[in-house]
Amino acid sequence: MNKKITLKYLGYMMVIEGAFMLPAMLIALFCGEKAALFGFAGTIALLFVLGGPLLLLRPQNQTLYAKDGFFIVALSWIVLSVFGALPFTVSGAIPRYVDAFFETVSGFTTTGASILTEIESLPKSILYWRSFTHWLGGMGVLVFILAIIPKSAGSGVSLHILRAESPGPVVGKLVPKMRSTARILYAIYFAMTALMILLLILGGMPLFDAFTISFGTAGTGGFAITNNSIAAYDSYYLQNVITVFMLLFSVNFNIFYLLLSKEFRAAYKDTELRVFLGIVAASILMIALNIWQTGQELCGTFLEALHHSAFQVATIVSTTGFATTDFNQWPMFSKMILMLLMFIGASAGSTGGGMKVSRVIILAKSILSEIKKLIHPNSIKLVRVSGKVVSSDVVHSVNGYFAAYIALMALSTLCLSLDNFNFETTFSAVVACFNNIGPGFDMVGAAGNYSAFSDFGKLVLCADMLLGRLEIFPILLLFSPSLWRRTK
Amino acid sequence: MNKKITLKYLGYMMVIEGAFMLPAMLIALFCGEKAALFGFAGTIALLFVLGGPLLLLRPQNQTLYAKDGFFIVALSWIVLSVFGALPFTVSGAIPRYVDAFFETVSGFTTTGASILTEIESLPKSILYWRSFTHWLGGMGVLVFILAIIPKSAGSGVSLHILRAESPGPVVGKLVPKMRSTARILYAIYFAMTALMILLLILGGMPLFDAFTISFGTAGTGGFAITNNSIAAYDSYYLQNVITVFMLLFSVNFNIFYLLLSKEFRAAYKDTELRVFLGIVAASILMIALNIWQTGQELCGTFLEALHHSAFQVATIVSTTGFATTDFNQWPMFSKMILMLLMFIGASAGSTGGGMKVSRVIILAKSILSEIKKLIHPNSIKLVRVSGKVVSSDVVHSVNGYFAAYIALMALSTLCLSLDNFNFETTFSAVVACFNNIGPGFDMVGAAGNYSAFSDFGKLVLCADMLLGRLEIFPILLLFSPSLWRRTK
Repeated sequence: MNKKITLKYLGYMMVIEGAFMLPAMLIALFCGEKAALFGFAGTIALLFVLGGPLLLLRPQNQTLYAKDGFFIVALSWIVLSVFGALPFTVSGAIPRYVDAFFETVSGFTTTGASILTEIESLPKSILYWRSFTHWLGGMGVLVFILAIIPKSAGSGVSLHILRAESPGPVVGKLVPKMRSTARILYAIYFAMTALMILLLILGGMPLFDAFTISFGTAGTGGFAITNNSIAAYDSYYLQNVITVFMLLFSVNFNIFYLLLSKEFRAAYKDTELRVFLGIVAASILMIALNIWQTGQELCGTFLEALHHSAFQVATIVSTTGFATTDFNQWPMFSKMILMLLMFIGASAGSTGGGMKVSRVIILAKSILSEIKKLIHPNSIKLVRVSGKVVSSDVVHSVNGYFAAYIALMALSTLCLSLDNFNFETTFSAVVACFNNIGPGFDMVGAAGNYSAFSDFGKLVLCADMLLGRLEIFPILLLFSPSLWRRTK
Repeated sequence: MNKKITLKYLGYMMVIEGAFMLPAMLIALFCGEKAALFGFAGTIALLFVLGGPLLLLRPQNQTLYAKDGFFIVALSWIVLSVFGALPFTVSGAIPRYVDAFFETVSGFTTTGASILTEIESLPKSILYWRSFTHWLGGMGVLVFILAIIPKSAGSGVSLHILRAESPGPVVGKLVPKMRSTARILYAIYFAMTALMILLLILGGMPLFDAFTISFGTAGTGGFAITNNSIAAYDSYYLQNVITVFMLLFSVNFNIFYLLLSKEFRAAYKDTELRVFLGIVAASILMIALNIWQTGQELCGTFLEALHHSAFQVATIVSTTGFATTDFNQWPMFSKMILMLLMFIGASAGSTGGGMKVSRVIILAKSILSEIKKLIHPNSIKLVRVSGKVVSSDVVHSVNGYFAAYIALMALSTLCLSLDNFNFETTFSAVVACFNNIGPGFDMVGAAGNYSAFSDFGKLVLCADMLLGRLEIFPILLLFSPSLWRRTK
């Protein structure tokens, strides 16, 4: 591997993390939160001191392979979380470091699983940083670096990094230049977040809440700043704005780029978008009928049922994890639909997690082609999505991804079962963390949290969150001996 | 499709089912079980009258395709279960036909899931038939037909039928002639069952029990004739004999053929056998430690823990489903190991269910080859099992199988959740039925049963049992329009 370039990227990442902590530090300063101020200032200093010198490296060898891209991404995310957790512990907001690390990994991976039982009493600066990690993690920190760094620093690696950090089976450039692609993505991300903040403020939400909730929505994270999540905003307008934006942030950003380029036909013909909207509509309707019929709390009229169903479907399929009601109390049929949505997740190229709709489509089509092969053994069946043939390499790697995904979740559930909680809690905790959702069911449901797990259990779930966000292989590669053997 | 040959096979199947009911009828006669006698005699008459004339068909066209093989197998198993359930209902042993159908499908598919709450009071002839369905289903009824029918009747179809009815990703002939292969398989099956009966009788088990328990073990089914399953035989010798034979019947029968042919080297080098034994040994040890440490009932000493762990691991991995203790009471870690074993299942070419160890090996190797491809993008990685290269067609079809397997289980869990039982019950019921095990956890645990589900739920589980036993595609093909369109 190319050590110098790796270290240089790590340096960029640390300095930028420090820079992104500055707003939180300023909030601590203005609100007079002394302990938090000390925590942020100290961490920023540490990041600058450790990361700054790495920027001075002048790597001669610019050659980088795909595995280097994976390695840089995996390492960066771990280091990001290690330092991002410091302010929580130093400020005393989350005294135990393992808990702070869990909370930070959950933030950056946009999971939104929390070990906190009491949120509202935390300092504002801490709440701000906690929500801001979602916004950073949503689009990817390294994609941000690609957008801003000078061209000289290892431009060869940039596509590999974009591929490793962006979700989905196929990641392409929007425009020929990598830097421009990264900039367009962040511009769309920034504009949509700003629009959401504006709409929330217009609906009467306090400024601080509008910012933090928008960060949590844009990154499809799910950290709220109140103990009862979005139920605290007792306004259908506000809840519906959040519903709509959760869904928007689960759409492939290519679609927005197509719309901006006035290529409406191409956007309209996108198979993933159609299937995604179909799944959302069908789920909302089935759950609304189910909870209305069984007379759930808050869902007296069908319209109320529809409202809560839409919010919960959006929050789960987008892998955000906000809540307006304790859906753990819903009948098993509605819970099972939500559980299936957890696996499916959002679209490729969005900020959401899960398996991604495009992978589900490719898997479904490869099942169909197996059946067709049995009927007509000699015919060659191509898998097509959006009218284009999907290369057999992609089909195989999606199948390999799926096998690894299920195997790792099974292994994690086995590890977590050592904590001896019931099956629903254990299994749904792994599903909710691996797919970067946040709340699961029963003890880790919308009204619960992750504080009861052992340190080992929490670390297993941290690994799951990282595996899910980085789509497995970058993290698995860290354990491959051949990555460490070769040196340049 | 070739209608005449399909109907002729159906005729064979019905006549043979009738013939196989004769012993049960004789038992009813000798034990003076009038209602049962009437049930068996009536069903046998019906099968002979309906099936007999079909044998007179003289199909001109002997051409058959793979899809015809799948179709014949799927149809035969459904018809087999429809008629096999009649004696239960006619005799009054299981008054409702849906329940009787569930019990029969569970029998033939060697699942062993039961809707009965009280077993011991049933007539002996009914108990005999119930257990005998396991023995028939284990090796496959159509494989039996292949072994006995004259060569003339559609010999072209026989390999396709063997493939469709035998479990595993690759099914080959042991010897060049299909009939001889089928006969060898049945000879081994028969001899091992006889040996087991003998060993049980030598251990003091009553004759009737020895027969029925051996049928349940050989088919890896799991119907017992007592309410508390194998715990009724309070002898370590008997329980250990059953443990060993459950494991033997989960081994690929090719291994036994190799041993008989004195090809010890080839048997020793078999990857699936090694992995299977490794999984079994590791699981037994981990569970024994876990239940011994947490002080489970009956597992006071480590040896006792080892004994019960071995029995339960063997019963689950072989997908039999007997029990010596209520493992639902065990800690979550032990339960999770058992749950994972449910998915893995037995070896290909055995009588056991589940995904099959060989598929797990191929999936694991295809994950590894994906990782290697990321490190060395231009290298070509071949998947090898037992030293031989697995063709990429087989690797793809295993991946397609896995995707279909998970998707169908997810869909079934969603359907079953309409019955609104808790998650552990709902999910484990589907897992236990799809993988042909029998007992799941919680309400459907070793001490529970399936009587509480609605008729719809029971039919969903029936479909799962058939999908699992016939390995998905024969059943899915029934719903393919193109199967019905073409006629010859």
